[in-house]
Amino acid sequence: MEEKKDKKQKKIENRVVKIREKNIKELVKSIEEISKNMISQIRQGKSPVFKTLLRGKGNVFYDEKIGYFQLRERYNFRRFLNIAHARKFMQTTLVMEKAYEYLNEGKTAALREIYYDLKHTLPKSKENTFEEQRESDNVLTDLEHGLLTIREKLNVHADAKGSLYGDITMQDVKHNNDIFNAAKIGRGGWSIMSHVEPEEIKIKKINADYLLVVETGAMYERLVEENFPKKNRAILVGTGGQPSRGTRRLIHRIHYEHKLPVYVFTDGDPYGWYIYSVIKFGSMELAAHSYYLGVPDAKFVGMTMRDVEKYKLQNVTEKLKDTDIKRIKELMQYPWMQSKEWQAELKTALDKKIRIEQQALANKSLSFVAEEYLPKKIKAREFLP
Amino acid sequence: MEEKKDKKQKKIENRVVKIREKNIKELVKSIEEISKNMISQIRQGKSPVFKTLLRGKGNVFYDEKIGYFQLRERYNFRRFLNIAHARKFMQTTLVMEKAYEYLNEGKTAALREIYYDLKHTLPKSKENTFEEQRESDNVLTDLEHGLLTIREKLNVHADAKGSLYGDITMQDVKHNNDIFNAAKIGRGGWSIMSHVEPEEIKIKKINADYLLVVETGAMYERLVEENFPKKNRAILVGTGGQPSRGTRRLIHRIHYEHKLPVYVFTDGDPYGWYIYSVIKFGSMELAAHSYYLGVPDAKFVGMTMRDVEKYKLQNVTEKLKDTDIKRIKELMQYPWMQSKEWQAELKTALDKKIRIEQQALANKSLSFVAEEYLPKKIKAREFLP
Repeated sequence: MEEKKDKKQKKIENRVVKIREKNIKELVKSIEEISKNMISQIRQGKSPVFKTLLRGKGNVFYDEKIGYFQLRERYNFRRFLNIAHARKFMQTTLVMEKAYEYLNEGKTAALREIYYDLKHTLPKSKENTFEEQRESDNVLTDLEHGLLTIREKLNVHADAKGSLYGDITMQDVKHNNDIFNAAKIGRGGWSIMSHVEPEEIKIKKINADYLLVVETGAMYERLVEENFPKKNRAILVGTGGQPSRGTRRLIHRIHYEHKLPVYVFTDGDPYGWYIYSVIKFGSMELAAHSYYLGVPDAKFVGMTMRDVEKYKLQNVTEKLKDTDIKRIKELMQYPWMQSKEWQAELKTALDKKIRIEQQALANKSLSFVAEEYLPKKIKAREFLP
Repeated sequence: MEEKKDKKQKKIENRVVKIREKNIKELVKSIEEISKNMISQIRQGKSPVFKTLLRGKGNVFYDEKIGYFQLRERYNFRRFLNIAHARKFMQTTLVMEKAYEYLNEGKTAALREIYYDLKHTLPKSKENTFEEQRESDNVLTDLEHGLLTIREKLNVHADAKGSLYGDITMQDVKHNNDIFNAAKIGRGGWSIMSHVEPEEIKIKKINADYLLVVETGAMYERLVEENFPKKNRAILVGTGGQPSRGTRRLIHRIHYEHKLPVYVFTDGDPYGWYIYSVIKFGSMELAAHSYYLGVPDAKFVGMTMRDVEKYKLQNVTEKLKDTDIKRIKELMQYPWMQSKEWQAELKTALDKKIRIEQQALANKSLSFVAEEYLPKKIKAREFLP
């Protein structure tokens, strides 16, 4: 009997949360339903409840079939009539009301803005609604997980970062219907917005064979200067380090809406490998958002330890620091880094105690990366998985 | 006699270095002349010498007449036949040769690239030309100060950062002559390049009354979303924190080439004030570059301590940390912050122990900053100097 219950429980616990992209109308309706439920709970003399996905590390798992992080379908219930929950419950309803307002008015707000927008002293008390931004960030995360969506769809966003270049035509339907081509606005390219939802930015047309994601700003500028995107029919995204959410979302959309393969080009070091990992598998913190942000088909084009040998770059490698070594050992343990190719790559780095930067290719010549390295590797499909 | 010599010496020491923008041809010629001189020194059996401006803090001063930092006309001589100078001399000639090559080929390179481009082991030795990027950065700085120019004019640049939005038409003459208007490429705007020299990016036309420089990415997005630039005939530059050199150079060019007043909008805190200070006065480290980067006429529009009172924002101020207090006391000592308005502003911050962020205005409403705060303050010319 006990065992049977355990099995049933186990089955529920192993069920994956089903996420489907909701549009604005559906989100507005969801918020209305949650609110109506709360009101009817109050009328029945019950404590109103807010339900959101459990996000602790214990509920995150790497879904091998799809190839990215997921959350199990387990929930967290926040009750107003519970002294430990009351403040957070109050904050959640405030943020939910605000998101509802933004959605209806077609306004968007930064995380810092929604915090200040909502911060005030409760009447007849000395209690502030929020004391610091971390509080509003947290309940916003609860809300997006309660609604099975991402905050960008609730018109709330983090800061923007990243640039886009190449023969891709987009339309900003919320801004005079501007139509622009990211290969025709000078070498700087388009400054990727913090929110690039399909309701705002339409991807009209792409003339390219693949999307190349580049870690450093300097390499992005190098490839544009060398006319790499035109010569190789490539779209270029410069992440400027760890990609912002807006940049990840745009990469995801270009991949799924236009079937463009995604190749990632980073330094051959723990930071670069982690950037690749986040683009491809998603991240543990945002496991429920993999559906919106992950690109499990992405491939790693470089830098690799093999490049060091092949192109005789030993002289321009850098020595691993102790923190690098620790980080590599961690990476080797991750279930999503278990392919033999990645294990061999990381082991070589450990054995040789080296890391290699994108810019090290300049040691051959400035144009080497654009004229030889990338075109040859991509043509030969010399990728890490 | 001694006194007379002292006076003469004093006069020379107080002379300001005269900087004039040199074009590519002139720079190429300058490098050729320096090199020819070196060769003739060698032929005469003398030690070749490289001459560059003395950049130590002792040689920097705040030029009250112009309103930015300057360097005195004092030089540093690096001699090849001096064991303490030999390695740096070798590095300087390598970087100079490389810059010459970039200029002639019309190539540009990032700091990291020129480092890797030049790093190699000297024949018949175990000596590397460069061991770390700091070395090549340093001699590049020597070179730009030796040539009285900025590295961007030598086609070498730091990383890009910053966005541009508004009715400004530019032409990238090095890239298919792309002509684009930064108000017609969606809300993201133009990703400001690391190098925006007139030989590369032409500013064709501006339809605006002023340039507003904004510290945070979130505020930049807010103002674009509210259609502030169009309604107020403003050009918008988002610096994303401390502005990059490319962004400072673009602000400078828009101001001087198109006579646009520059208003700076940052948080009311030490970091924000420092951003303003750098845009207006330049920085001590780049004192010789004020001519290229500084905008002494820039004005500070906010956030101010007066705003806190006027708009009743007490509830959304943040408390000063000890490091903030220390920093404010330093700022109050700077000769360029001696106006009574700035002294009063900083004193109020110290007295009240508060700082105030741009996003705090969201406490009134999201659109408050665009509909009321900025238009009213700018119309009333309610600036700090």
